[in-house]
Amino acid sequence: MVNDEERFRDGDFVLLVPLFKTKKEIRFVIKLKSGQVFHSKFGVIQHDGIIGKYYGSVISSHLNYNFIALPAKLHEIVQNYKDFKFITQIIYPRDWATICVFADIKKGDKIIEIGTGTGAFLSYLVRTVGSSGFVYSYEKDVERAKIAKRNLDELGIREGYVIKVRDVIKEGVDERNVDVVFIDLPEPWLVIKKAWCSLRPGGRIVVYIPTFNQLEKTVMELMRHGFIDIKVKEGFLRNIQVKPYAIRPELKGYYFSAYIVFARKSFVIPLSYVEDLVKHAYLGEKIEYK
Amino acid sequence: MVNDEERFRDGDFVLLVPLFKTKKEIRFVIKLKSGQVFHSKFGVIQHDGIIGKYYGSVISSHLNYNFIALPAKLHEIVQNYKDFKFITQIIYPRDWATICVFADIKKGDKIIEIGTGTGAFLSYLVRTVGSSGFVYSYEKDVERAKIAKRNLDELGIREGYVIKVRDVIKEGVDERNVDVVFIDLPEPWLVIKKAWCSLRPGGRIVVYIPTFNQLEKTVMELMRHGFIDIKVKEGFLRNIQVKPYAIRPELKGYYFSAYIVFARKSFVIPLSYVEDLVKHAYLGEKIEYK
Amino acid sequence: MVNDEERFRDGDFVLLVPLFKTKKEIRFVIKLKSGQVFHSKFGVIQHDGIIGKYYGSVISSHLNYNFIALPAKLHEIVQNYKDFKFITQIIYPRDWATICVFADIKKGDKIIEIGTGTGAFLSYLVRTVGSSGFVYSYEKDVERAKIAKRNLDELGIREGYVIKVRDVIKEGVDERNVDVVFIDLPEPWLVIKKAWCSLRPGGRIVVYIPTFNQLEKTVMELMRHGFIDIKVKEGFLRNIQVKPYAIRPELKGYYFSAYIVFARKSFVIPLSYVEDLVKHAYLGEKIEYK
Amino acid sequence: MVNDEERFRDGDFVLLVPLFKTKKEIRFVIKLKSGQVFHSKFGVIQHDGIIGKYYGSVISSHLNYNFIALPAKLHEIVQNYKDFKFITQIIYPRDWATICVFADIKKGDKIIEIGTGTGAFLSYLVRTVGSSGFVYSYEKDVERAKIAKRNLDELGIREGYVIKVRDVIKEGVDERNVDVVFIDLPEPWLVIKKAWCSLRPGGRIVVYIPTFNQLEKTVMELMRHGFIDIKVKEGFLRNIQVKPYAIRPELKGYYFSAYIVFARKSFVIPLSYVEDLVKHAYLGEKIEYK
Repeated sequence: MVNDEERFRDGDFVLLVPLFKTKKEIRFVIKLKSGQVFHSKFGVIQHDGIIGKYYGSVISSHLNYNFIALPAKLHEIVQNYKDFKFITQIIYPRDWATICVFADIKKGDKIIEIGTGTGAFLSYLVRTVGSSGFVYSYEKDVERAKIAKRNLDELGIREGYVIKVRDVIKEGVDERNVDVVFIDLPEPWLVIKKAWCSLRPGGRIVVYIPTFNQLEKTVMELMRHGFIDIKVKEGFLRNIQVKPYAIRPELKGYYFSAYIVFARKSFVIPLSYVEDLVKHAYLGEKIEYK
Repeated sequence: MVNDEERFRDGDFVLLVPLFKTKKEIRFVIKLKSGQVFHSKFGVIQHDGIIGKYYGSVISSHLNYNFIALPAKLHEIVQNYKDFKFITQIIYPRDWATICVFADIKKGDKIIEIGTGTGAFLSYLVRTVGSSGFVYSYEKDVERAKIAKRNLDELGIREGYVIKVRDVIKEGVDERNVDVVFIDLPEPWLVIKKAWCSLRPGGRIVVYIPTFNQLEKTVMELMRHGFIDIKVKEGFLRNIQVKPYAIRPELKGYYFSAYIVFARKSFVIPLSYVEDLVKHAYLGEKIEYK
Repeated sequence: MVNDEERFRDGDFVLLVPLFKTKKEIRFVIKLKSGQVFHSKFGVIQHDGIIGKYYGSVISSHLNYNFIALPAKLHEIVQNYKDFKFITQIIYPRDWATICVFADIKKGDKIIEIGTGTGAFLSYLVRTVGSSGFVYSYEKDVERAKIAKRNLDELGIREGYVIKVRDVIKEGVDERNVDVVFIDLPEPWLVIKKAWCSLRPGGRIVVYIPTFNQLEKTVMELMRHGFIDIKVKEGFLRNIQVKPYAIRPELKGYYFSAYIVFARKSFVIPLSYVEDLVKHAYLGEKIEYK
Repeated sequence: MVNDEERFRDGDFVLLVPLFKTKKEIRFVIKLKSGQVFHSKFGVIQHDGIIGKYYGSVISSHLNYNFIALPAKLHEIVQNYKDFKFITQIIYPRDWATICVFADIKKGDKIIEIGTGTGAFLSYLVRTVGSSGFVYSYEKDVERAKIAKRNLDELGIREGYVIKVRDVIKEGVDERNVDVVFIDLPEPWLVIKKAWCSLRPGGRIVVYIPTFNQLEKTVMELMRHGFIDIKVKEGFLRNIQVKPYAIRPELKGYYFSAYIVFARKSFVIPLSYVEDLVKHAYLGEKIEYK
């Protein structure tokens, strides 16, 4: 039943899962390159000792530590592969999913990403929209853009996207009529209007917001600029301890990542939004006075 | 900039977002069919009054209630379209995402789903694996299978999957060497071995578990049958109130859906798993005695 | 073993727990008064039929619905007794506890509460500080103050506190050298300075904050006014479904109540706070400019 | 305004809050003893340099590191004072509160604690029930009991409780007609019956349960033994980052402590519980067969 498609080949990403006990969870991700060698404190592993082996094989280091070798998942590569360089806080994989489901991101979508950063989410977006879609990613910092490009190259993702070096706040974007605009900037409210212009009617906007402070301004800008159906979600994932005699959530872990704002491009401002904005202005003034 | 692709056509799913205030959030999803009429307590809307309109247009009922019409997202259709019939608790959209990211479900994957249910997640899976992938979905109840089929027909999803009426616990599955097995059954531990056999080496398994009770048995069966890298996640999403003068999480909402178990097919049982199983057996015995 | 102290007496609060199945959870709280009658859709119960009965007795309505009668807990009385009138959103019982533990509220403490509201938390505070402590509660609205007073009368709490009708923002408080100041106002930042003056050295302040918007201003005011060890906590409680064959968290419930801010009175402003305030001012300016 | 009651005295617990920046949060708790010296990597502090100082004073180490000295809160002492020895996982302060509010633990209550452990929660219970209440705490391990006793001595808590060295599972408890039984054992279901016998009618039981596995058995035992109004709660507290320009929840922290089970002593078993137990038995059998 096992055929040649089930064997590791040069260029594949491999996840190594230790068969021995470790104090903290250890997962190595390596990219196979014939002739190369993987070093860790558990000893040396020849890449050529993995190439040609079936998925799920046991691989031993020269110190006789055993690992299971598996095809690595995208989120494992992004989080564990040494040559995928983190230059910014990435959009967490636990949020990739939430964004894609609730913004209905799918095959064929044309997407603008404002704030390339490390390129982790960009890689997921490119894979999701497929060959019939496209991702236009904007990054104002030249160095970051280079590293993000190199990161995607490392992943073997060479098509379906472009990274443009530009400060969108000052210079805007080129595309019109796109399906989705995704914003991950410290001051997202400054590009909401530009996002509106570049979206097709009914188009979807998503803003990734790490602090409370940014949320109010962003929501107000969306309300003012003809976005409707504004929704904000905050997700968290809890890991459960896998001990059959002591199953319980882990005691500690990530319990926050960001607020994720979703909305749709429209041509009107609902009365309720106007009222909310007026109420905000009034309350603001009242507060200033005191 | 707006072209003909931005207009509603016969057969499209439309989301109607009210422009007036409502006590509870209201979202209607309708499927356009020339000559038909949509009734609600806010009055009557002719489908022909929407067909041909641009996305994001304002639509009025005969009682002069105004709505924005938008192309509906998949999760909105599944949750709001009247002819998508719920016969079981569905896998929640907030979990679709988590499953697909952490099981790395993507274009081209061959997937077995055990427990079709209503077919909601099936529709998302079919869309995700695309035309180069395939989903084999098993359902033991004939009536459910029929309704699920009709649900996917309603969504316009006619290819890329098959629903087989069969009790997998008794009769197993036909496919071998698939990439992913997804299980949503009350007694998932009874099909773990069958899932192992049908997966390709390194293949991914996901089990969706709504109660504590089922979790221990499932994890133990995975440990016993050569699955490794077992991880369990529990996710929840909190909605944030969108009032610019009073931004805060909603007070009430969904705070649980299910435990989601992820693992990979391997050919060995790690020593740590054996120890855990032994410890469980010992503790179990000790407890029984008292 | 059961003695006369275990029997219901006139004036006691009784919790009635139905012994029959109900679709939604039902808990009645009544205050026993000889000669009175309790009406519900499950029939009539004579108070005199409960007075003199042992705690835990079965009580039947005239329609033969059975209930267990138990001494009611404080939080049950506050949330279920009809004559405890809600005029504002109360501090939730799930937060009473968090506040008291992390502000170390205990027997003997002198406490100022700014914003009496309904008086629910006041009742818990009075009970917690006991006869050697005291709670000075300020409420600017005369009507509210009256109702809160009546609520505490209903609970039988007649000593250990005073409700003063006053707008603290304008007129300040009378007490000095108190142990704790608790603030539950829409604009808490306006009384931070007054709170500082009324606290003893090292005294504890707690601010209850329902929205994001209020949090930033409050934290900044605390930093500016010589409060240190500032901590903010957000708690939530999840209810677990009690079905031995299907134990799992409830699907829906309260998942937010408020942000709770804790700090201590000091005479200095730590350098790190100054830096944070400067950084905030700078970022604010930068943002305004654009 | 500051009087002699506001000065540190021999025997007081002091919380030292650094006025300088530290990478991780640092809080020292020391117990003042004239003539002693406190050492840390930030230098030496003479206890006599604190004794007599006002609360909230600045204290400098010989290396010129400055701290604010504050009266320490109970939960800070338990978690940070070196001579309070942890021998078991303690009941977390975040749970002390939940237990006391929802079990209505208050002045005057007589309480049995089964499983003294480190004695942290015992100290909070003793303080809460006050001089008119009492806590009977059972611990089967002699060494643990000694350390717990020493811990309470260290806190200066010498009255209002007793620690009895006994295996309650085998030998039961002495008291009858108590108000509350609190259980923190690995196999709590083995003492449910004994707890029922020792409670007064309507009495409250609380069981602290760290894993899923223990929950089902415990709930079933409560149902079988005449406990009603069974409720299970799981709490969690999220810390918010206190930076006025970047307010957001901390990214990582504790997101689980335990399941807390609450119930009341009754003399009947509600029909719904019987049905649940039968359903469980049936499902259990059905599952065993397959």
